[in-house]
Amino acid sequence: MSENLRKRSGVAGDAENVQEKTDGADTHSDKENIHSNLRDSEIDSEDDKNGRKGSIDLSSNIPTGTNKAPFMLEMLLQDLPDKWRNWVVRGIFSFLMLTFFLVVIYGGPLALMITTLVVQVKCFQEIINIGYSVYRIHGLPWFRSLSWYFLITSNYFFYGESLVEYFGVVINRTDFLRGIVTYHRFISFCLYCGGFVLFVLSLVKKYYMKQFSLFAWTHVALLIVVTQSYLIIKNIFEGLIWFIVPVSMIICNDIMAYVFGFFFGKTPLIKLSPKKTWEGFIGGGFSTVIFGFMMSYIMCQYPYFVCPIEYSEALGRMTMECEPSILFRPTMYELPGFLCGLLNTFGLPTTVSLYPFMLHSLSLSLFSSVIGPFGGFFASGFKRAFKIKDFGDVIPGHGGIMDRFDCQFLMATFVNVYISSFIQTDSPQKLLTQVLYLKPEQQLQLFHMLKDTLENRNILVPSV
Amino acid sequence: MSENLRKRSGVAGDAENVQEKTDGADTHSDKENIHSNLRDSEIDSEDDKNGRKGSIDLSSNIPTGTNKAPFMLEMLLQDLPDKWRNWVVRGIFSFLMLTFFLVVIYGGPLALMITTLVVQVKCFQEIINIGYSVYRIHGLPWFRSLSWYFLITSNYFFYGESLVEYFGVVINRTDFLRGIVTYHRFISFCLYCGGFVLFVLSLVKKYYMKQFSLFAWTHVALLIVVTQSYLIIKNIFEGLIWFIVPVSMIICNDIMAYVFGFFFGKTPLIKLSPKKTWEGFIGGGFSTVIFGFMMSYIMCQYPYFVCPIEYSEALGRMTMECEPSILFRPTMYELPGFLCGLLNTFGLPTTVSLYPFMLHSLSLSLFSSVIGPFGGFFASGFKRAFKIKDFGDVIPGHGGIMDRFDCQFLMATFVNVYISSFIQTDSPQKLLTQVLYLKPEQQLQLFHMLKDTLENRNILVPSV
Repeated sequence: MSENLRKRSGVAGDAENVQEKTDGADTHSDKENIHSNLRDSEIDSEDDKNGRKGSIDLSSNIPTGTNKAPFMLEMLLQDLPDKWRNWVVRGIFSFLMLTFFLVVIYGGPLALMITTLVVQVKCFQEIINIGYSVYRIHGLPWFRSLSWYFLITSNYFFYGESLVEYFGVVINRTDFLRGIVTYHRFISFCLYCGGFVLFVLSLVKKYYMKQFSLFAWTHVALLIVVTQSYLIIKNIFEGLIWFIVPVSMIICNDIMAYVFGFFFGKTPLIKLSPKKTWEGFIGGGFSTVIFGFMMSYIMCQYPYFVCPIEYSEALGRMTMECEPSILFRPTMYELPGFLCGLLNTFGLPTTVSLYPFMLHSLSLSLFSSVIGPFGGFFASGFKRAFKIKDFGDVIPGHGGIMDRFDCQFLMATFVNVYISSFIQTDSPQKLLTQVLYLKPEQQLQLFHMLKDTLENRNILVPSV
Repeated sequence: MSENLRKRSGVAGDAENVQEKTDGADTHSDKENIHSNLRDSEIDSEDDKNGRKGSIDLSSNIPTGTNKAPFMLEMLLQDLPDKWRNWVVRGIFSFLMLTFFLVVIYGGPLALMITTLVVQVKCFQEIINIGYSVYRIHGLPWFRSLSWYFLITSNYFFYGESLVEYFGVVINRTDFLRGIVTYHRFISFCLYCGGFVLFVLSLVKKYYMKQFSLFAWTHVALLIVVTQSYLIIKNIFEGLIWFIVPVSMIICNDIMAYVFGFFFGKTPLIKLSPKKTWEGFIGGGFSTVIFGFMMSYIMCQYPYFVCPIEYSEALGRMTMECEPSILFRPTMYELPGFLCGLLNTFGLPTTVSLYPFMLHSLSLSLFSSVIGPFGGFFASGFKRAFKIKDFGDVIPGHGGIMDRFDCQFLMATFVNVYISSFIQTDSPQKLLTQVLYLKPEQQLQLFHMLKDTLENRNILVPSV
């Protein structure tokens, strides 16, 4: 074991020292040698303020062999100037990702959930692998398994919690599964404690600091990745629109900020990400608001997008059919006074028919274009802190999965909080589901208690 | 600003380098200079396996001036040999803490909650201060405020969540407070986003790594301290017994493991904490099981301890009076077969009257004596990793608050999960509270839905 433990001088302590210490030829016995590539890559574009990221010399940084397309692409594109070549690579893969996104949406909620899970696992892997590179304890046994163990445990916990909530009524019917539901938290906690004990037992003298740092690293990664992907799943259950619109907004904001930055970018926005410009930020913001508004208008018309995924007692299965809620029914709005006068002069109507969701979409687009980019700045800062260019190299022209999803996580939480604060107050339907968990005699007890309180307050006329 | 930023060589990266680098004379402009004391103190007791912690030469390590008692004590105790002197200091302060604990229990749930809050803040402070010492960015502006800001935000979130749950019905009556309840999560999230944005804006080049590490450090501290103290509060609401018994078990286990270790300790238990012995572990475990069993027996008799804290619709205030649940009513248990034969021979009864809670106390005491100590090992490992002796110096002979509460946090989570899995399934009373949040017409709607489903399943006889 201790042969593998490689003593190296500290990396985490002082950012300035890192660059000198990261010697180029760093081959690990470990199968993942992505990181030696990552660490060798230079961040050489401090002074280029045109695009968001496009002008980093990608061609030399894309690790070859991960994927055949970039190689073929490079052959095709070799005569183009660098800047344009990157633009094309980036464009093609943006297009591919968008297509994939549409296919998954077409696949329905289950496909979306599985994709979320896969993305989550990839993001976790990327974050954890950076941790391994930073603390250089590739050789320490147990640790890799332990991180994954915690990932599985916390997924079991969170997905369990949400599945129990939605499929509870079904599960409750079979006695065997009832146990899994009732004891789900207990099982999760025991699994966690097991991991905790294993961690303590796996501590090796002289590596305490690194092991604790990685333990913390693992937990922060779980906090970012697992909890938020759980929120994404919860949003999907509220209706596909709550997932698709916010995700598209972030994508739109990313792309439009890049485009505006590329063509008009002059004024640097923040020192942290020297390639982000005020022009991109503002242009992206406006585009996102308009895009979100239009997209909401289109999606509000299809029950497929607006209906929450619920268990139908009548059909005996999950459904996505419903009478659309008030949010998704056209409503007449009076335009503000100063506009009315103007419109009257031209003999135009002073009211407009909108879906109320479209107004909510404004909050979402504002968040995604004002706070959203800070997710990206945070990720840039993080990458700078640890002297890495990208989180991974899965998507040519874009970096790792985490590079594309940095803003999505914050957005998912916002949407979830937004729904629970402004949209969904406990519905009678939801509470009934909870009531049906009770034993029959307790259900009856609740019925009588409810009857009494309603009669006392004269809401229900006492039956004779 | 940048005058304060002191360039130092890295600490976090490599544990081995730390000792050389921590030069003794390290006076900060910062008012907390506790840590320079901490870092100078030596961990010199690797080979002493007698007590749990007693034989570290405390007299020279207790920072003077924090507290007058230790100084006076030292004068009184100066003729005693070192080992005994520490024993006495430790003993006296254990006694003082126990007295304080009893006083707080006597003070009732509100006193307990406030104490929990204070302990939580102290623990957070200790963990964060260690972070500051480790990463040595005392001078960076913003950061200290930012950590505390996150502490306040997350407390607002968690305490809000639990207070809303319990006082919801009352709050719901006044329209102004209704807003705070409904938008509580949204406000918390906005506050958090504010902190997040401030963090990104406060990033200073060359300090990225340290700032991100401390950001992670802050979040891990919040995860450990705030979430778990929230669970402690939730346990208190279930009935004081769910708080007092587990806390006492950990205290008992700590003390008895120390006593057994001190008198009989020979076989080292774990490399991580060289002063913990198998004798202490086993002796402490047995004592805890017996102690927990007896303590439960006594406490089960008082409604003050066993009644959950609930809002009484009739009285219009919170009460701790109730018809004790089945858990706290004496129940006859048949003894296992092999004992019955033996008891029959002597003409003794083969049944025994117990409170069912006493059986649950066995699970709790087992957890607190088997897994509980790992909380302590974890803390020891952590302290070793960062080359500190104690988390703080608030309690003479014991170190910081965190040193005494390291095992309590894990226990609180266990109790909470245990209650939610094995004790409290949704009660009709709890669900009714939730129903009363709904608008009157929704309450009526739920009433009719419930009536229909009950009638369909023949649980309720349809009224003519």
